Amino acid sequence: MSNYIYGIDVGGTTIKFGLFDHFGNFLKKWEITTDKSDNGKNIVKDIYTSILDKTPNLEDVIGYGLGVPGPVTNNFIPIAVNLGWKNVDLKDELKNLLKNEHIYVANDANIAALGEAAFGAGKGHKDVAMLTIGTGIGSGFVIDSNVIEGYHGAAGEIGHLKVNPQTPLPCNCGKKGCLETVASATGIKNTYRLFKKTFVGDSSLFSLKTPSAKAIFYAAKNNDELANLVVDYVAHYLGYACHVISATTNPSIIVIGGGVSRAGDFLINKIDKNFNDFLFSPVKGTKIVQAKLGNDAGIYGGAKLVINNG
Amino acid sequence: MSNYIYGIDVGGTTIKFGLFDHFGNFLKKWEITTDKSDNGKNIVKDIYTSILDKTPNLEDVIGYGLGVPGPVTNNFIPIAVNLGWKNVDLKDELKNLLKNEHIYVANDANIAALGEAAFGAGKGHKDVAMLTIGTGIGSGFVIDSNVIEGYHGAAGEIGHLKVNPQTPLPCNCGKKGCLETVASATGIKNTYRLFKKTFVGDSSLFSLKTPSAKAIFYAAKNNDELANLVVDYVAHYLGYACHVISATTNPSIIVIGGGVSRAGDFLINKIDKNFNDFLFSPVKGTKIVQAKLGNDAGIYGGAKLVINNG
Repeated sequence: MSNYIYGIDVGGTTIKFGLFDHFGNFLKKWEITTDKSDNGKNIVKDIYTSILDKTPNLEDVIGYGLGVPGPVTNNFIPIAVNLGWKNVDLKDELKNLLKNEHIYVANDANIAALGEAAFGAGKGHKDVAMLTIGTGIGSGFVIDSNVIEGYHGAAGEIGHLKVNPQTPLPCNCGKKGCLETVASATGIKNTYRLFKKTFVGDSSLFSLKTPSAKAIFYAAKNNDELANLVVDYVAHYLGYACHVISATTNPSIIVIGGGVSRAGDFLINKIDKNFNDFLFSPVKGTKIVQAKLGNDAGIYGGAKLVINNG
Repeated sequence: MSNYIYGIDVGGTTIKFGLFDHFGNFLKKWEITTDKSDNGKNIVKDIYTSILDKTPNLEDVIGYGLGVPGPVTNNFIPIAVNLGWKNVDLKDELKNLLKNEHIYVANDANIAALGEAAFGAGKGHKDVAMLTIGTGIGSGFVIDSNVIEGYHGAAGEIGHLKVNPQTPLPCNCGKKGCLETVASATGIKNTYRLFKKTFVGDSSLFSLKTPSAKAIFYAAKNNDELANLVVDYVAHYLGYACHVISATTNPSIIVIGGGVSRAGDFLINKIDKNFNDFLFSPVKGTKIVQAKLGNDAGIYGGAKLVINNG
């Protein structure tokens, strides 16, 4: 009898494995280092080997849900820069190794949204959006308990939303003024550099050569004026991003995750205030909350992907 | 044997009825005037009477799909200002009169999107967005052939997206800077009034007391400099709205409908150019096209709603 489900989060640094029972109850987790050598050609074999090592009998596994850092359409990955992959049919490759048809692949931000929606901060909600703020910014939309992937696998690519800041900065995507140039961990550092140029006064941040996003939030919480200018500017654009999500897909809750979300209520409350300034009154009551599952959102989402397709 | 499907578009001026066979092939259509007296309390009875009048045997009807001008959640309408309705359970009221369980209600912009997606300009596409530009601006998202309604029934309320124009104008919703204050038929007239104040030169529009959106497009096509400034400004924000749609739900095609879309390729090409300026490269190839079904999109969408739920 098949009893187990695997949720697997394939990242650029580590590959996280989560083992769940057939209800989606968490059993155990572990991780391995991502071998990006030779354009990531060993990754699929490494996933297979690790599963084999931890699973007494592969026939006990119902299915596997995997998240990858790149656009995904119909389980196919045209490009995943952080893995070195181009045109990888992950489902097909794993299917042959694992002798199992039930393999489902999704974009990592989408699968994290699915995890938070089903088992984390969005539990109990059917329409959930998640905004993941890390080095870059991604988002995922769960509509009626299913995650949407978009025609090009690019649903929720809100990091590249043009937000029209006063000073549009160049983005890795080749355009200017993208949300993540202003409000990701990198964007927060960009914003600090810009504000520092014209700031008149003293700041605790001046003693640091290149303050991190974490240091900027720490200073802001301790009433540093410059740090607060930066955080308020960032929160304005994150509130705007939540407004854009609300005006398009209208979820009942927006979950804020990723490294930057560790700034906690200090940031969440500022995002919420800005979101409410933009708000169209019929969607009043839409919640903005901090994510709960941290780095495990992807493995939980992987399990849910199997359950949804089961 | 049940053979027929009704698609019904309940508008503030007329109620449009469409009769379709069970494949969704169009058979005939007609309309009646919307009786908005006494907070629209006669509307449901009028719909029932008109159906009864045109249908020899109600048992031949598979189901009824209806669009209404307001948010809809689970077939319930909390408010529809243009009909005078508050808290109307349309499904329940019609179910009792028509003796049929298969009654499905959706927002009018959403149902128009479903109609264009299934039978109009989006035919053949599974992920379709429609932007309807009339007196106001609405939109609808068809994802994997189903229209999404959102938690508050407000998915696609993109007319109230804050677009940060240089001169934010007040909107009927009580906020400022909404897309429809700049780029709806009313918004185009607003934009003209703003630009006229500072325009140095002559314009064919000066001979008209209050030029309509149609007159402004006509003048722009005839190389009127002021009219072109207005149209280019409007197209910039409509292109931005398409970018927002693309960065969130990532459809393969965006259909432009409503009265303003009658400006045709002259407008569509300008929207497309602006959209491509904002574009995140992985979604390259997303089409922007003019709607095909005109005022019949709603009745076609109503038929499709029945088919989707059948």
